[in-house]
Amino acid sequence: MRAAVLSAGTVVVREVADPVPGPGQVLVQVRACGICGSDLHFARHGAHMLALDDELATAPGSKRLLGPRVELGRDVYLGHEFAAEVLVAGPGTETPVAEGTLVTSVPVLLASTGTATESIIYSNSTYGGYGEQMLLSAALLLPVPNGLPAHLAALTEPMAVGLHAVNRSAIRPGDGALVLGCGPVGLAVIAALRLAGIGPIVATDYSPTRRALATGMGADVVVDPRQEDGWAAWARTGGGGRLVVFEAIGVPGILNDILRAAPRDTHVVVVGVCMEADAVNPYFGAVKELSIQFVFGYEVEEFASTLRALAEGQIDVTPLVTARIPLEKVSWAFEALSDPEQHCKIIIEP
Amino acid sequence: MRAAVLSAGTVVVREVADPVPGPGQVLVQVRACGICGSDLHFARHGAHMLALDDELATAPGSKRLLGPRVELGRDVYLGHEFAAEVLVAGPGTETPVAEGTLVTSVPVLLASTGTATESIIYSNSTYGGYGEQMLLSAALLLPVPNGLPAHLAALTEPMAVGLHAVNRSAIRPGDGALVLGCGPVGLAVIAALRLAGIGPIVATDYSPTRRALATGMGADVVVDPRQEDGWAAWARTGGGGRLVVFEAIGVPGILNDILRAAPRDTHVVVVGVCMEADAVNPYFGAVKELSIQFVFGYEVEEFASTLRALAEGQIDVTPLVTARIPLEKVSWAFEALSDPEQHCKIIIEP
Repeated sequence: MRAAVLSAGTVVVREVADPVPGPGQVLVQVRACGICGSDLHFARHGAHMLALDDELATAPGSKRLLGPRVELGRDVYLGHEFAAEVLVAGPGTETPVAEGTLVTSVPVLLASTGTATESIIYSNSTYGGYGEQMLLSAALLLPVPNGLPAHLAALTEPMAVGLHAVNRSAIRPGDGALVLGCGPVGLAVIAALRLAGIGPIVATDYSPTRRALATGMGADVVVDPRQEDGWAAWARTGGGGRLVVFEAIGVPGILNDILRAAPRDTHVVVVGVCMEADAVNPYFGAVKELSIQFVFGYEVEEFASTLRALAEGQIDVTPLVTARIPLEKVSWAFEALSDPEQHCKIIIEP
Repeated sequence: MRAAVLSAGTVVVREVADPVPGPGQVLVQVRACGICGSDLHFARHGAHMLALDDELATAPGSKRLLGPRVELGRDVYLGHEFAAEVLVAGPGTETPVAEGTLVTSVPVLLASTGTATESIIYSNSTYGGYGEQMLLSAALLLPVPNGLPAHLAALTEPMAVGLHAVNRSAIRPGDGALVLGCGPVGLAVIAALRLAGIGPIVATDYSPTRRALATGMGADVVVDPRQEDGWAAWARTGGGGRLVVFEAIGVPGILNDILRAAPRDTHVVVVGVCMEADAVNPYFGAVKELSIQFVFGYEVEEFASTLRALAEGQIDVTPLVTARIPLEKVSWAFEALSDPEQHCKIIIEP
C-alpha cells in the first residue's frame, strides 16, 4: 500500500508492506486523517522529543510515553487523528461492527498477543493514518454515527483534547475562562467550554482568521493581544468568578508571562505542550497563590462523547477544516500549516 | 531603643527612634522573634528580591508584595515571627487585652489613618521584631494562651505556613504525603499533616538532625535522599492513595526534578519559595498530568488556630528552637543558620 512516511525529517510517499491484522485487530481503509501540530513538531524536533522521552523513562516509576524507542534513521509512521472503514477482522476476531462501517478509535493499538499496547503516534512499525490502510483494535472501535463525514469524524481526536482539558480543570458555571491561543487545541477547548455552559469565554490570538474561528466555536470575547491583552479583556467582561486560564500556545516564555500577569488565585490549565525547557519565576506563582495543572490526551469516554457531540451537531467543526488533500500533498501541508491565516486543520484523504 | 537592623547587607545593632503608636495601634515590648530563612535570603539577595517584586508590580492587576519600595541603602527593619508584651495603646485606642499581656499577631500593621496596611517583613520605616519595641494593630492582637512561653509563641508564624499549605492542598485522609526538605517550613508542614490525620507521611532531608526533628514532628518515614529517594520511600510504604508532594526546599532545579520523578497524577504543593528563575520541562508535567500549586503565607484564622495548637500542646515546637540569643548575636545567628546540623530556629530575645 502507499503511505506518507517521515524519512530523515521530510515527508515522502512510498510503497510499504500491507498491514496484516492479528487476533483482536481489524484492518481498515483510512478515509481521513488530520495533521496534528505535534506531527509537525516531531518532524522538525524529533530527536529532542525522543531525548525528553528517554529522560522521563529513566525516572523511577516512569515509562516511555512513545512506546518502543523510535529510530529517526528509519521511516516513521504518523497519523493519530483518523476515520476509517472496516475491511476485515484478524483471525478469530469478532468485530462489533460490520465490514464497510466508518469507525474511529483512540489511537492505541492493542497487541495481538498479550496485553501490551502501543500508541499510534510515531512509530517505526505501527502504521498511523498517513497511509491507505492501518490496523485498529476491535475492542476500541467506535462506529461513526449519524452519517458524519469521515473528514469531520477525524477531528474527534483533537476535539477530545479540549473536552479532557475542560473536564480536568473542574471549571464550573460561574467561573470564567480565558483561552490563550486559538490553534486547534485552543479551539477545541473553546468548544468544550461552550458545551459545558461556561461563560464568559475570552480568547486571544494574533491571527484574524483564528479569532474568527474562535468566535464561531463559541468564544464571547476574542482579542488580538497586540491591541488588548487577555487579562484586560477578561477584566472588561466584569466576570467576577474564579478565573481559569487555558494555555494553548505551548511555546517557551508563555508560562512565565502567565505567572507574572495572572490575578491572584488563578488556576492555569496547560493544554499546549511546550517541548522545550522553560524558565519560570516561582516567586510570581507563590505570592499570588497560582496553580498550574498540566493536562494531556483524554479518556476513552471523553473520546466517545466528543464523537457523539460532533455527530449530533452540538459542535460544528466544518469551519476548522481548511483543506482536504491526497497523500502526495502531505509534504506541502506540513509547510502550509505554518501560516495560521491560511490553514487550521488539513485532512489527508489517502 | 535598640534594634538589629540590616545595613548594607550586614546586621548591626544600633539605637533607633522609639516607635510611637497611632490610633488603632499598640506599642509592645518584643519578648521573642524568630529568624526566618527569608530574612537570610533578603540579607544576601535583597536587590534581586526587590527586582522580582518590581516586575510583579508592573503586571496588570498586580501589586507590590512588599509594600512601599524598600531602599537597600538605608537601614532595613526585619522580624515577622514575634511574641511581645503589650505596653500602651495609641491615642483613643481600646486594646482588647490588658497591658502586660503576652500577644502575637499576623505580621501586618494597619495604618493609624485610613485603611492602608503594611506587611511587617522588610521595611525602612516599620519596625519588626528585631528590636526592643514595635507597633502592632490593636485589631489583630492575639493573646497567647495557656502560659505558652514567648520563645515558643514566636513560632506561631512559621508553623501557620505549614497549616496553610496543608489546608490549601485539599489533602484528605487516605492520600499520602511526601515532604521534600525538613527545614522549618517542611517541619511545619509535617506537623500540620499529622494534626490533620494524614498518613503515611514520608519526608526527606540530607541532615540527620533535621531528619530527627521530622520524626519528632510526626513523619512516619524519613530518609536521606543520598541513600533512598523520597519516591522509593513512598513506594515502600505501599500507600496506594493519591500522592501529594510538599516542596519545602525552594532552590532552583528541585521543581524539574519533581516533574521528572513524580508518579502520574501527583499533586505538587510548592511551599518553599524559590527566589530565582527556574527551568522546568513542561513535557514531564504534561505526559503525567501533574499539577503544581503555589501556596504562600496563611489566613488570619489559620494563624490563630496554629497558636491554639501550640498552646494546647497539640504541636510541640520546643525541639525546633536551637538557640535563644540577645540582639548582639543576630549577626552570628545569620551565619550559624547556614548549618542545618547545628541550628533550626534561632529566637532573638531583645
